[in-house]
Amino acid sequence: MERPEHMRVVITGGEGFLGRRLTASLLRQGTLRAADGQSQSIDRITTVDVVPPSLQKDPRLVAIVGDITDPALLLRAIDPDTTAIFHLAAVVSGLAETAFDLGMRINLDATRGLLDACRTSGARPRLVFTSSVAVYGPGAGLLPDTVLDTTAVAPMSSYGTQKAIAELLISDYTRKGFVDGRVLRLPTISVRPGKPNAAASSFASGIVREPLNGEPAICPVDPDTRLWLLSPATAIECLIAGHDMPAAALGSNRVVNLPGLSTTPREMVAALGRVAGPEVSRRVSWERDPRIERIVATWPGAWDTTRARALGFPGDDSFDTIVRRYIDEEMGAEQT
Amino acid sequence: MERPEHMRVVITGGEGFLGRRLTASLLRQGTLRAADGQSQSIDRITTVDVVPPSLQKDPRLVAIVGDITDPALLLRAIDPDTTAIFHLAAVVSGLAETAFDLGMRINLDATRGLLDACRTSGARPRLVFTSSVAVYGPGAGLLPDTVLDTTAVAPMSSYGTQKAIAELLISDYTRKGFVDGRVLRLPTISVRPGKPNAAASSFASGIVREPLNGEPAICPVDPDTRLWLLSPATAIECLIAGHDMPAAALGSNRVVNLPGLSTTPREMVAALGRVAGPEVSRRVSWERDPRIERIVATWPGAWDTTRARALGFPGDDSFDTIVRRYIDEEMGAEQT
Repeated sequence: MERPEHMRVVITGGEGFLGRRLTASLLRQGTLRAADGQSQSIDRITTVDVVPPSLQKDPRLVAIVGDITDPALLLRAIDPDTTAIFHLAAVVSGLAETAFDLGMRINLDATRGLLDACRTSGARPRLVFTSSVAVYGPGAGLLPDTVLDTTAVAPMSSYGTQKAIAELLISDYTRKGFVDGRVLRLPTISVRPGKPNAAASSFASGIVREPLNGEPAICPVDPDTRLWLLSPATAIECLIAGHDMPAAALGSNRVVNLPGLSTTPREMVAALGRVAGPEVSRRVSWERDPRIERIVATWPGAWDTTRARALGFPGDDSFDTIVRRYIDEEMGAEQT
Repeated sequence: MERPEHMRVVITGGEGFLGRRLTASLLRQGTLRAADGQSQSIDRITTVDVVPPSLQKDPRLVAIVGDITDPALLLRAIDPDTTAIFHLAAVVSGLAETAFDLGMRINLDATRGLLDACRTSGARPRLVFTSSVAVYGPGAGLLPDTVLDTTAVAPMSSYGTQKAIAELLISDYTRKGFVDGRVLRLPTISVRPGKPNAAASSFASGIVREPLNGEPAICPVDPDTRLWLLSPATAIECLIAGHDMPAAALGSNRVVNLPGLSTTPREMVAALGRVAGPEVSRRVSWERDPRIERIVATWPGAWDTTRARALGFPGDDSFDTIVRRYIDEEMGAEQT
C-alpha cells in the first residue's frame, strides 16, 4: 500500500492581496487534490514574502520572511516533499516600469530561481503561476476584439514582458519534467479592497469601492471602454482549480486564459446603481486622462474562454454579482 | 557640422557558419547605413567567439576569444562607440535540448548580458538578432498552414524557448531605449556547406549537398513534408538589410518573420535533378525516421511574409536557384 500523500504547499507573495486570500481559503478548506485525483489534507503551508506574516497562527502555517531571489531561501521553502507551489510574488506593473532592475529581479530572476529550486530538490510540484492581460498588446497592430489562445503575445510594458518570459520558462520546465506547471492569465481584478494605487487599472476597482465608502471617484477612461474583469473571490477559486486539475487535461499547453467578464465603466456604474442605489453611483464623475486611456487601450477587452470553461474554470456571471459579493465579503466586517 | 559617423560593428558567434560569412561580406562591402540613412564606412569589426579567428588578417578586424557570458568580455567588446551588433552566438537546438544549462547560459543569459552591456555602455546600437522557426509549435493544437505575424509562439524545445525569451527581452530593451533591436526569425537554412550534423533539419541540406559530392543521402521524412527554407547567401543579405532599415519602418514591432521558400523534399530533389542531372538526384533514398518526422512536424511549413517583403527583405525565388548558387559559391573553389 502506498503511503498516503499529504499536501505540502508553498505560496510566494503570501502577504499580497491574492496570497493572503489564498492562504486563508486553503487553511479553511484543508485539502487539495493529489495527482491521483483524490482530496488529501494539507499539512503544511509555507508562505514566502518580504513582509512579516499577518495571518493568525495556525499549526499548519510556516512563514519565511526574506528575499525570494535568494537561492538558499528558496531551498529552505521548497523540499522534496513540496507538492504544490502557488507563485504569486511579483513587482506590479507601474513599479516594474519605473524600477526596471527590480522588476527583472523579482518577476524574472525569482521565477527562474524557483524553477531551479524545484529541479534541484527533485520535488516536481504542481506550480500555479499568475500571469496577466499585460502579456498582450497591439503587437503587429492587429490585437483582435476577442483574443484567442492562438493570438501572439506582444507586451507593451516590462511587467508584461517579464510575465511572458516566466510563462515560457514554466512551459519549458514542465516539458522537461522539472515541474508540473499551470500558468493562469488573470483578467483585471475588480473589485479590489483597500486604497487606490498607482496602477493604470486602479480605477476599475475605485469607481465601485470609493462610492460604496461614501467617497467620490473619477473614471479616467471613455465610459464605453471594454474591460476584462475577474472578481477576487473567483480568482482564488481559479487558482485552486488550476492546481486541482489533472496534468492530462492540460496536455502540452500549460497557459490558460481565465474566464473574465467583458464590461465597460458605464455598465459597471449602472450595476453599482442597481445594487447600492443611484445616490451611490452618482459619486462617480467622468474625466478622461489621456495617459491612462493610452495604457488601457493596449489591453484586450475580451478573450476567448472556450478552453478555460471546458477545463472547468469558474467565471463571474455579472458585475451586479461582483458588486454584491464585494459588499458582503469586504464591507460586512465593518458594518456589523 | 556633425562628426562623420563611423560604423563600429560587433559580431557574436563570429566564427559560426553565418558569422564567418557575415564578417566576410561586411569587410567586402565596407559600409553600413547609419541612423541618417547614409552609407558610412565600417572602420572596426569586433568578432566574439569561443574559438580563435580563422579569417585572414584585416586592419579593421578585432577578434575577442572567450566566454560570451563573461560581463567583462562583453564590456571589452561593446563600448560607447559601438554602432551595430549582430548577435549570432547560440547553442544549437539539439545541444540546447540535451545540455539544458549550457543552452540557458548561452542562449538566454548571454543575450541578457549583451543587452545590459549595451545599456551600461550607453551605446544604444542597432542590434540584429537571429531567431528561429523553433519558436513556433502546435501550442493550442492549431498551428495554421501559414503562420501569421499574429500567431502565438509555442516552442516545443528549450532552444525555441530561449529564442522566444530573447525576442521578448530585445523588444522590451528597445522599447526602453537601451538598444535599437531587430529580431529576424530565420527559416531553416539550406543548403548549408560542410558535414551533416545532429540537428533534425540536417537532411534539408544533406539531400542536396551529399549527392553533389557524389555521396548517397537519406531523406528521413515524408517526401511531401512542407519545409520553409532560406539560402545562406540570402540570409546574409537579410541580416544586413535588418541592420540598414530605419527604426521608424519597424515601429514598435521588432520581430520580423523573414521571407522563406515553401517547398518539399520531393520538390527539392526534383530541382537537384534539373540542375545537376538525374544521376545526382538518384543518390537520394527515402527512409522515414519517426523520431525526426515528429520534430519536423512541429515546425511551420510556411509563414506570411507580407510585412517582411514590404520592409524590403529579400527571399529566394526557387530551389533551383538555391542549388545553382550553392554549386557556384561553395563548390567552385574545389572544382577549379
